[in-house]
Amino acid sequence: MSREIKAIEWDTDKIVLLDQTSLPRVERTLEIRTVEELISAIQRLAVRGAPALGVAGAFGVVIALDEAKTGRWSNDQLEAAIDSLREARPTAVNLAWGVNQVRPFISLGRDVVLQAAIKLANEDKIANFLMGNIGADWLLRELGDRPLNLLTHCNTGSLATTGSGTALGVIKELHNRQRVKEVFVDETRPLMQGSRLTAWELEIEGISYRIQPDSAAASAILSGKVDAALIGADRIARNGDSANKIGSLGVALACSIAHIPFLVVAPESTVDRSIPNGDSINIEMRPDHEITHFADKQIAPVDARTFNPAFDVTPARFVSAVITEKRAYEIAKGEIL
Amino acid sequence: MSREIKAIEWDTDKIVLLDQTSLPRVERTLEIRTVEELISAIQRLAVRGAPALGVAGAFGVVIALDEAKTGRWSNDQLEAAIDSLREARPTAVNLAWGVNQVRPFISLGRDVVLQAAIKLANEDKIANFLMGNIGADWLLRELGDRPLNLLTHCNTGSLATTGSGTALGVIKELHNRQRVKEVFVDETRPLMQGSRLTAWELEIEGISYRIQPDSAAASAILSGKVDAALIGADRIARNGDSANKIGSLGVALACSIAHIPFLVVAPESTVDRSIPNGDSINIEMRPDHEITHFADKQIAPVDARTFNPAFDVTPARFVSAVITEKRAYEIAKGEIL
Repeated sequence: MSREIKAIEWDTDKIVLLDQTSLPRVERTLEIRTVEELISAIQRLAVRGAPALGVAGAFGVVIALDEAKTGRWSNDQLEAAIDSLREARPTAVNLAWGVNQVRPFISLGRDVVLQAAIKLANEDKIANFLMGNIGADWLLRELGDRPLNLLTHCNTGSLATTGSGTALGVIKELHNRQRVKEVFVDETRPLMQGSRLTAWELEIEGISYRIQPDSAAASAILSGKVDAALIGADRIARNGDSANKIGSLGVALACSIAHIPFLVVAPESTVDRSIPNGDSINIEMRPDHEITHFADKQIAPVDARTFNPAFDVTPARFVSAVITEKRAYEIAKGEIL
Repeated sequence: MSREIKAIEWDTDKIVLLDQTSLPRVERTLEIRTVEELISAIQRLAVRGAPALGVAGAFGVVIALDEAKTGRWSNDQLEAAIDSLREARPTAVNLAWGVNQVRPFISLGRDVVLQAAIKLANEDKIANFLMGNIGADWLLRELGDRPLNLLTHCNTGSLATTGSGTALGVIKELHNRQRVKEVFVDETRPLMQGSRLTAWELEIEGISYRIQPDSAAASAILSGKVDAALIGADRIARNGDSANKIGSLGVALACSIAHIPFLVVAPESTVDRSIPNGDSINIEMRPDHEITHFADKQIAPVDARTFNPAFDVTPARFVSAVITEKRAYEIAKGEIL
């Protein structure tokens, strides 16, 4: 039986986060009352997923205002705190977007900012619902109205949003329509958002799935086991170039060679129309120890260096369509966003 | 300073293996005196790599003969033990090949079998040397005589052979010629042969490297950071279709799209000319716990199912050349093996 997962919500004077670093073994919440705690939670990926980060940014401004009042911050201190929150992770456009959405209301008082943040969270939930339907419609029209084998990478579900999810929201909607055979879940190294988070959500929803090493995606796709792949995005350029969790590009290449749809599902807030293409997307580099260690156990030689980008950019020519809450942008047919 | 690594060798009455499950943190050897111990070591991947498995198969027949004598086995018992050794892992052709190479000498006595096995090990070492030179020559001719950034997947070095290695042997030869800038080492999930074994060998050789998640290979390749990729093989069909560690296919697809060379380096004993293409290669499926657990720590939901093939098959159309100890087969130019 499905139950509601709440990745992030506001409670009176604090943000309550479901701590995603300890899932699926331990379900515990974190209470966030300071900007510093929030930045730390964002950087540790206790809260993650582009849409959820947008909501975290908006609620974070309320936290900053409360902290400024208690701590008697100067206006400059307040602005600096909000700026550092906005920059806590560089790639997802949504974090800065969430901050920017509510910041103009600061002069109207803390409660107006809080209302704006709550509204933003509710709109995200509605956007999830709409993306789920638009994406499901698109796939069943493209592939025929039949049960599908799907592949997804990273986590784009309720843990990444305030609703059913983006790419995973489409999969849940297809499941509601009894159109999912099985989901191939990339485990998503190094932090295992696939095996830890997506698998956990699919268990709760009762959707059949198998976890695979990220490196098995090409084999699953080229051997005909997969009908379509769906991913989320952290930033989408106007031409459809899409930054998403490292490994998304490899999935896209395999889909392109196998001639199956590769869908990017993300709210309009993830689209950055200020950039013409993906070349100017700043890719966050993560620390060596994520690769050289696992659960504090050393895997690699001491002092090994790594190449550990958090994201890659899938060029638009490998994207079949971008699904937002507005509509399906047919990138493969030359549409732009 | 480089030192010699011995993955497998014969010592009087036993096989001595460097236990690859505990590297790089612990260097310990295993002494193998029974077929059952050898099969277990092969299945746990304490010894691995197609050429090393060939040598293990050959020495294993000696072990079986010694065990048959001590245990007063019937001829049928002996044959059954050798058969089960030959089938211990299904994909690498070399294991069965190594067994088959020495089996005809059984009637000539145990010492003749041992001499044949030692000869086979020495020939593997020479083959490594030749592949290293042929592969290095091919790359420098193809890409120009300049230092290269290379990418490799899994471990194909001294730990996979009795010499310098196959793909990693080529990299070592290029390093001897001062033609290696940096090696991108895929960590190689789920058993981390890249970060545990290849990184360890590169440290010993003093070759500059960076470990990356397998899922970062496409990004490294498409962003121009890599000049060529080199992998080994467990079985190569006559047309050039190549079975190798899961994830090799994804590397090949990225190289193909980026128009950089993708080389398969393996001894002639890995070429299975009895099969016209990769369709009939039997792919070993590995257990769920390799994916759902790490170092006995549970990652995924309890009872999660997995898709965990040990290998994938790269179609010949994505292979630039196959390098053996005989020569470079120009698969991209339509040659067959």
